[in-house]
Amino acid sequence: MTQNTVEAPAKTPVTLLGLGAMGTALARTWLAAGHPLTVWNRTAARAEALAAEGAKVAESVATAVAANQLVVVVLLDDASVDEALGGVDLAGKDVVNLITSTPAQARARAEWARERGARYLDGGIMAVPPMIGVPESGGYVFYSGSRELFDEHRETLAVPTGATYVGGDAGFAALHDVALLSAMSGMFAGITHAFALIRKESIDPAAFAALLSDWLVAMAPAAHQTAEHLKSGDYTTGVASNLAMQSAGNQTLLDTAEGQDISSELLVPYYELMRRALDSAAEAADEEGTARMVDLLRR
Amino acid sequence: MTQNTVEAPAKTPVTLLGLGAMGTALARTWLAAGHPLTVWNRTAARAEALAAEGAKVAESVATAVAANQLVVVVLLDDASVDEALGGVDLAGKDVVNLITSTPAQARARAEWARERGARYLDGGIMAVPPMIGVPESGGYVFYSGSRELFDEHRETLAVPTGATYVGGDAGFAALHDVALLSAMSGMFAGITHAFALIRKESIDPAAFAALLSDWLVAMAPAAHQTAEHLKSGDYTTGVASNLAMQSAGNQTLLDTAEGQDISSELLVPYYELMRRALDSAAEAADEEGTARMVDLLRR
Repeated sequence: MTQNTVEAPAKTPVTLLGLGAMGTALARTWLAAGHPLTVWNRTAARAEALAAEGAKVAESVATAVAANQLVVVVLLDDASVDEALGGVDLAGKDVVNLITSTPAQARARAEWARERGARYLDGGIMAVPPMIGVPESGGYVFYSGSRELFDEHRETLAVPTGATYVGGDAGFAALHDVALLSAMSGMFAGITHAFALIRKESIDPAAFAALLSDWLVAMAPAAHQTAEHLKSGDYTTGVASNLAMQSAGNQTLLDTAEGQDISSELLVPYYELMRRALDSAAEAADEEGTARMVDLLRR
Repeated sequence: MTQNTVEAPAKTPVTLLGLGAMGTALARTWLAAGHPLTVWNRTAARAEALAAEGAKVAESVATAVAANQLVVVVLLDDASVDEALGGVDLAGKDVVNLITSTPAQARARAEWARERGARYLDGGIMAVPPMIGVPESGGYVFYSGSRELFDEHRETLAVPTGATYVGGDAGFAALHDVALLSAMSGMFAGITHAFALIRKESIDPAAFAALLSDWLVAMAPAAHQTAEHLKSGDYTTGVASNLAMQSAGNQTLLDTAEGQDISSELLVPYYELMRRALDSAAEAADEEGTARMVDLLRR
């Protein structure tokens, strides 16, 4: 008579290609969670520390891919995927591509994988390496492409950081990634200008940062109103926040930059676009919010 | 023998000049809180509704000012202050100027008030009228100038919305106001670009807005790191978020805009400044964060 034992379900084995800062951070979380892990990196030395932590180090990319069904790619860029995987058999594999790419590159890569008999999921990582494995960091990965692949490997993919599926179009993860990073660029440009304004004054940067950060946190949800306007096609807003009102206020912001000897180069294009939005729709735009400007960016 | 009664302390009477949307919103909160209120507006019709709610309507700006020690100014702009108050006796008055102005205008106005024997407090309103009287809106007013005036009238000033004192320099309220609004411009520019990127795709703007807003809320506290760098003079950051790394990623953002037929005009100046920051400090800048860019905006 044998003793009944309850065994923990086996963790999905993972092959990880690329051990830069991000690849290494991802690898550690899978090892820590008990997933068998096979790694490959062009420079083998990068794999040594991970080997000591339990990773199998593959001699070649082909043996790494052959080892497991789930293959996660964190190579340098799109070109290095061709270089590394050009001659490798991918039939029956589940390829999860986490390299930074444009939506067009991601769509082409999905087609490339399909031709090779692999299922394909594209990912856009909304985190820097120190945020990986730290749930409270708020980091996550956008995924798009094969819904089947995502659903089957959801638990494994959610080990390093959050996992958010945004659609069957393989380009949507990259598009969401780029859109959020672009918006962040704008916010950081604004933060840069704000600090420049107070730089030479007797104002404590730390106290100012707290006010600035709280203000941006309070105002970020304005994105919801823009979405409502774009959805409904009705861009009309309250009298207090229409374009005419906002545009009138911009002059004070520009005059203040001038008075503080600060270049307004980071703000001017937005104010010029606002002016064009006001001109484009004649009287109507006076009562409209910023949604009109979204349409004007289209070439 | 008279009966002992506990009377509520009398509320400070307020004179309010200017009944635009903001002035009217402020007036209502003071009336609702039981403050005796005297109002004046160039166009007397604007005062009718408030009179019905208990406000005294002054025939002239001089009688309005004479009525109370505390005089709150919410006229159209700096020029209208001269126009309205040019010939009025302000000796012994506490003037709280809430009009939108540059720091230079606020400093000149403080001197103007001093010459007339008045104490002066300048305010920058971080709210639109619908946020006034709604504590959970997160709105508030920056105040700078006479600390005495602020401390004596703190309770009265905090009736319509939050009150934050930022220094004895009368220009600091306007400077904080403008700096935060400038940063918000940048964030809104980024939001505009982000929506333009997804505009023609089958992506729900509302779902996208939620992701976008959450991301910006999570990233806004990056302002604290910039402040630390500016304070310490050491701009070195982690390898994951230095300028070289960020700048390399910008090309994907520009290529994606191109692929979506969207103009990058709102993002390019920030990326060009980043490039200049990298060039300016040779190798050092590779390891630096965005704080270097703050210095480069100085003319």
